[in-house]
Amino acid sequence: MTAPETLRFENHKLILIDQTKLPGELAELVCTTVEQTHDAIRRLVVRGAPAIGIAAAYGVCLAADDPDDRESNDESESDPRSRYIHAIEYLATSRPTAVNLFWALDRMRGVVESTSVENLKDALVAEAKRINDEDRQMCHAIGRNGAPLLSGIDTVLTHCNAGGLATSTWGTALAPIYHLHQTGQAPKVLADETRPLLQGGRLTAWELSQAGVDVTVITDSMSGSLMRQGVIQAVIVGADRITARGDVANKIGTYPVAVLARHHGLPFYVAAPTNTFDLELDCGDDIPIEQRGRDEVAAPHGVGIVPDAAKVLNPAFDVTPADLVTAIITERGVIQQPTGESIARHFAEKCSGHI
Amino acid sequence: MTAPETLRFENHKLILIDQTKLPGELAELVCTTVEQTHDAIRRLVVRGAPAIGIAAAYGVCLAADDPDDRESNDESESDPRSRYIHAIEYLATSRPTAVNLFWALDRMRGVVESTSVENLKDALVAEAKRINDEDRQMCHAIGRNGAPLLSGIDTVLTHCNAGGLATSTWGTALAPIYHLHQTGQAPKVLADETRPLLQGGRLTAWELSQAGVDVTVITDSMSGSLMRQGVIQAVIVGADRITARGDVANKIGTYPVAVLARHHGLPFYVAAPTNTFDLELDCGDDIPIEQRGRDEVAAPHGVGIVPDAAKVLNPAFDVTPADLVTAIITERGVIQQPTGESIARHFAEKCSGHI
Repeated sequence: MTAPETLRFENHKLILIDQTKLPGELAELVCTTVEQTHDAIRRLVVRGAPAIGIAAAYGVCLAADDPDDRESNDESESDPRSRYIHAIEYLATSRPTAVNLFWALDRMRGVVESTSVENLKDALVAEAKRINDEDRQMCHAIGRNGAPLLSGIDTVLTHCNAGGLATSTWGTALAPIYHLHQTGQAPKVLADETRPLLQGGRLTAWELSQAGVDVTVITDSMSGSLMRQGVIQAVIVGADRITARGDVANKIGTYPVAVLARHHGLPFYVAAPTNTFDLELDCGDDIPIEQRGRDEVAAPHGVGIVPDAAKVLNPAFDVTPADLVTAIITERGVIQQPTGESIARHFAEKCSGHI
Repeated sequence: MTAPETLRFENHKLILIDQTKLPGELAELVCTTVEQTHDAIRRLVVRGAPAIGIAAAYGVCLAADDPDDRESNDESESDPRSRYIHAIEYLATSRPTAVNLFWALDRMRGVVESTSVENLKDALVAEAKRINDEDRQMCHAIGRNGAPLLSGIDTVLTHCNAGGLATSTWGTALAPIYHLHQTGQAPKVLADETRPLLQGGRLTAWELSQAGVDVTVITDSMSGSLMRQGVIQAVIVGADRITARGDVANKIGTYPVAVLARHHGLPFYVAAPTNTFDLELDCGDDIPIEQRGRDEVAAPHGVGIVPDAAKVLNPAFDVTPADLVTAIITERGVIQQPTGESIARHFAEKCSGHI
């Protein structure tokens, strides 16, 4: 397959596929400052929980060269350590829901706090690259672990984009599909378009068709009747944050798909690396849900479709309670029927292991 | 309230609000031929099951003046009776799912078959106006009958547009809301945007805000989490065809809303006139479902959002089985927990009555 290179770090620059322009245009955006990286995450140039974490990690490295910071007269700002801490704190404000962002930034903070100033720049780049490499291995491991669950079925539904464009490669929800595709055994994929920002219609359809996987786009309102007609045999999605008891925050529209899967007796799988878990939260209702602007709903592509006098809601995520989740697939294995106990066991059993 | 005049017949012309241009522009389309009327129905200039029936009835009247027909050399075409029958048969091909279309055309056929040629033109216009007037009374009756079901609740969800723009006035699903609004007691309305053609975001939001009803637009994927959060207390939708046992064909996306309502213990109401029932069909799966073109999904407003290599599905309707329907509200009353028996009773008890 032709894996799209979602993001890379070259010559101390962060280079991103500009996902806001897909599928019409395959353009790259080059970030040389922390500010540009923050803006790219906020504007969804790069999106998907794991990819946000990697981009933010590289973004921290850019504080070394940030012209805004170099010109600063503030003494504390000229201290490299506080420059990096400032960048970490700033990047943490780019988006609120995906926990991988905070996880990656915490790792970068650990390096800042434990490394001598003269080695800091190189050590931070090395840590960001490690996060990137681990993500790559994580995707392949999720692919291997999830493949048996999708093996032999005709059609799987996915929502939003938890594919290569949401990670360094292969993705989370799409990883088992790519794994099976290597031996020509991938199921057909139905991709919810995922209003308002159409990550399914634009991104999932693009990367799967690039890879030669059979993909069909539907509006978010069509999966119900296709389940009723027996067209869909399983659902697989990614996650932006998973609590200690297995409640899953993911793109708005995930929860209704989970309810529909349950109604039709279909398995509902969540694929996510262990760094998506926020074990400090128990209940999904405590996950902060990002509320985005009116125009993503009211004026897609600049065309006004909602009259000014009508209000609009635009939550970016919803929460699926654990009891609707058949299994969570991580890089370490599969958590069947996730509960507080089974998740704690998953972390305890393999906590010293590596991918 | 300012009721939008969806359609009217003046000086032997059919004048339609061009609903494809709302909410950006309030424009009228004037039809003077059967062909133009067929095209207006097919292109959704006029849509909504009852409005399609009325428009088609007026469209039959236009056969009298159709320049294409007047110029015809075919002798049978110059016979007014066969000109009208030809128009009826042609208009019946404009859209397949809504049964009101065939019901209205059957009434027009009855007039053609039972009226002398010299009186035919006036008799057909009179019959079309009667269909229009009855629809108006039907809307008000549904409003009265449905109002107690929505009285006192905070927020109701509706899908697509089953409002004044789908009928002659007030609509079906929105009629109880307008009824309550007369005394300042309307619930707040959440309007699903209803991809692909956005009848909720464009039309329901437009007509409710014009009338001063509190309306908020959401994407089709958001209602699930709003139900889970307790924001929504009831769902009300229209219908394009209802079978003898109460299965309901309505705009794509209705079925998942019904499943979500059931999952959250919320009432799911269907509001439709008795001419929406197709008592010759028992099972909803036998209702023909219109499949529409790729670009409504793949290139909304001309902006390509789905890569060419990906396939697209675009069924215009889905079927909600009767057991998910809490009640059907007609102009005659309310059918609680619709079944073959309760529907047969509804028709038998009042079959000789009038609105």
